[in-house]
Amino acid sequence: MRRLWHLLGVAFGLASAVGCFLVGAYFQHTHATRQLQQLVQQDVYAYYISPKIFAAFGFFNIPKGAPNHVQRIMKYGFPGLDDVRLYSDFVLSYDRRNRVAHWVCEHLQLANLQGARGVGRASATYRADLSVPSNFRSTLADYKHSGFDRGHLAAAGNHRGQQVHCNETFLLTNIAPQIGQGFNSGAWNKLEIYVRELTLSFGSVYVCTGPLFKPRAQGNRKWSVEYQMIGENMVAVPTHFFKVIMVESRLPLGKPYMEAYVLPNAPIPDQSTLRDFLCDIREIEHFAGLHFFQGIRRSAIFGSNYPSESKVFREFA
Amino acid sequence: MRRLWHLLGVAFGLASAVGCFLVGAYFQHTHATRQLQQLVQQDVYAYYISPKIFAAFGFFNIPKGAPNHVQRIMKYGFPGLDDVRLYSDFVLSYDRRNRVAHWVCEHLQLANLQGARGVGRASATYRADLSVPSNFRSTLADYKHSGFDRGHLAAAGNHRGQQVHCNETFLLTNIAPQIGQGFNSGAWNKLEIYVRELTLSFGSVYVCTGPLFKPRAQGNRKWSVEYQMIGENMVAVPTHFFKVIMVESRLPLGKPYMEAYVLPNAPIPDQSTLRDFLCDIREIEHFAGLHFFQGIRRSAIFGSNYPSESKVFREFA
Repeated sequence: MRRLWHLLGVAFGLASAVGCFLVGAYFQHTHATRQLQQLVQQDVYAYYISPKIFAAFGFFNIPKGAPNHVQRIMKYGFPGLDDVRLYSDFVLSYDRRNRVAHWVCEHLQLANLQGARGVGRASATYRADLSVPSNFRSTLADYKHSGFDRGHLAAAGNHRGQQVHCNETFLLTNIAPQIGQGFNSGAWNKLEIYVRELTLSFGSVYVCTGPLFKPRAQGNRKWSVEYQMIGENMVAVPTHFFKVIMVESRLPLGKPYMEAYVLPNAPIPDQSTLRDFLCDIREIEHFAGLHFFQGIRRSAIFGSNYPSESKVFREFA
Repeated sequence: MRRLWHLLGVAFGLASAVGCFLVGAYFQHTHATRQLQQLVQQDVYAYYISPKIFAAFGFFNIPKGAPNHVQRIMKYGFPGLDDVRLYSDFVLSYDRRNRVAHWVCEHLQLANLQGARGVGRASATYRADLSVPSNFRSTLADYKHSGFDRGHLAAAGNHRGQQVHCNETFLLTNIAPQIGQGFNSGAWNKLEIYVRELTLSFGSVYVCTGPLFKPRAQGNRKWSVEYQMIGENMVAVPTHFFKVIMVESRLPLGKPYMEAYVLPNAPIPDQSTLRDFLCDIREIEHFAGLHFFQGIRRSAIFGSNYPSESKVFREFA
C-alpha cells in the first residue's frame, strides 16, 4: 500500500514537472509573442520581416493579432523599403535625396470617402513634416514663388474618415511640385476623381501614387534625365506622376483588376482622356525602381496591361 | 512520520513544478533566441531591428551571438535602407531606379589588403548580379561602347583576403559608369590608394562609397539635375562620386577620425591634390539622402570637416 503511494507520488511529481515545463515554455512563448506583436505594430521594418520572425518560433501555434491599419493598407506588399513612414490612413516611402516621396500607398473604402460630418480640407493646412531630419526635409518656403503647386500624392478627398487623416495628407512628405493649370487642377484631379468612383462602385481599391524622373532621348542614341530643383532645400520637380490602381473583386474567388496611369507634369489639354495615359505597370516599375502588389501573381491579373479587355475601365469625358 | 513524508512530497512536487516551469520558459527562450539569431545573420532588415526584437524578450539575459561579418562592417549604422544587399566582404544598398548602388560600405583591416597568395583581380571578371530582378539589373551590354569605364565602388584591391571577396567586387551592382582617362585611372585611383595607406597606418578603416547626382545652377536662380543614362537598361552616369572615411583610433578611448571626398566624374588634372576635393559630410548627406556613421556623435569627431586640424591628413603628390 505504502509502495503504491510512493509510486503515485513519483508519477504525480513527474507529470507535474513535464506539465509545468510545457506551461513555462508556453508562458514565455506567449509573453514574447505579445511583445513582438506590439513591435510589429510600431515598426514598419519589424512588420516587413514579421513572417520570418514568427516562423522562427514554430514551437506552438501563433495566435494572430488583430490586423492594424498598416497591415490592411500594405496587404499586397511594399513597393520599396526606403525610409518607410506610417501615417494614420496611408503609408509612404520618402526619397531623402529628392525631398519628395518614392510612393504613397492608400486603401480606399466607402468609409474613407464619405467621411464624418465637418471633416474636410477646409480646416487643413500645408506644413513641413518635422519627423523628417532637417537635412532631408522640404519646407513651405521651398514651394513659395516656385511657380509650382503643392500637389497631393495621397489625395485629400480620399481621407475623410477623421480630420487627422485629412490633415496628414497636407504634410509636405505627401506633397510634390506640380504644374497647377492643366495638371493639378486638370487631368490629375480627373484621375483622383476616377479612383474615388472606382471605390464607390467596387468597395475596395488599393492605390499607389508617386513621381517619375523619366529619361529623354537627346539624339545620337543618347538618353538623359533632367529635372528642376526648387527652394533652398532642393526639392525635385518630377517629370511625370504615376498611379497604380488595384480593384479587389467583390466575388469570393474573383480576380483583382489592375491598371496604371502615367501623366506628364505639364499642362494637359482638356480634350485628352485618361485612357490616353494608360501605361504598362512594368514600365513604371522600371523607371521608378519599385515593385507593385507583389503579393499577386501577375499572370492571375485580368487585363492589367490590356485596357480593351477590361470590364472596369470606363471612358472619361 | 507519515505526515512529514506527505509534506515533503508536496514540497518536492511544488519545487519541481516551479523549477520545471522556469526550465521550460528558459528552454523556449533559448530556442527562440537561437532561431532569431540565425534570422538576424541572414536577413539585413532583421539585423537592423534586432536590438528591438531582443529587447522584446527581456525575460532572461540574452546570450550574444558571435558577431558575423555584416555586424562588423555595419558597426556604425546603415547610411540608408533601400534594397540592402549582403556580400561576403562588403554591404551595398542598390538604387533600382538608377541601376547603380546608393552606397557600398567596407571595413578595411590589414588582412583584407595583404591577402592570400594568388588572390587578386587577374582571375576576376565583370558580370551582372543575377540576384537583382531583371527589370532593375545592369548588364555588361549596357557598358559596352558606352564610352565609360566600369568603375569599382568597393575597390578590388581592398578585398584580397579570399578570391571570392575580390570576385564579388566585379559584380555590376558594385560598378558605376566612370570617366576612364583622368578619373578611374587617375584621381579616383589615388583616393583608393590613400584609403589603403590609411589602413596600413591605422589598422581599422570604415569606408562608404557612392554616386552623387548633384544639381547645377541654370542661371536666373534656377537649379536642375542632369545626368546621362547608358544602355538598354538605362544605367545612370553619376555626376560625382563620394567616399566617406572613418579611421578608428588605436587608443582604448581614442576618438575616431572622419573625412569625406567628392570628386566630379570628369577628367581631373594630374596636378590636383586630394585635399582639393575634401567635402563637408553634411553636404554629401544632403545630396545623397544618406546618413553616415550615425552610431557616432558628430560632436565627438575631431576634425571631421576641418582638414587643417587633422593629424591624419597627408598631402598627396
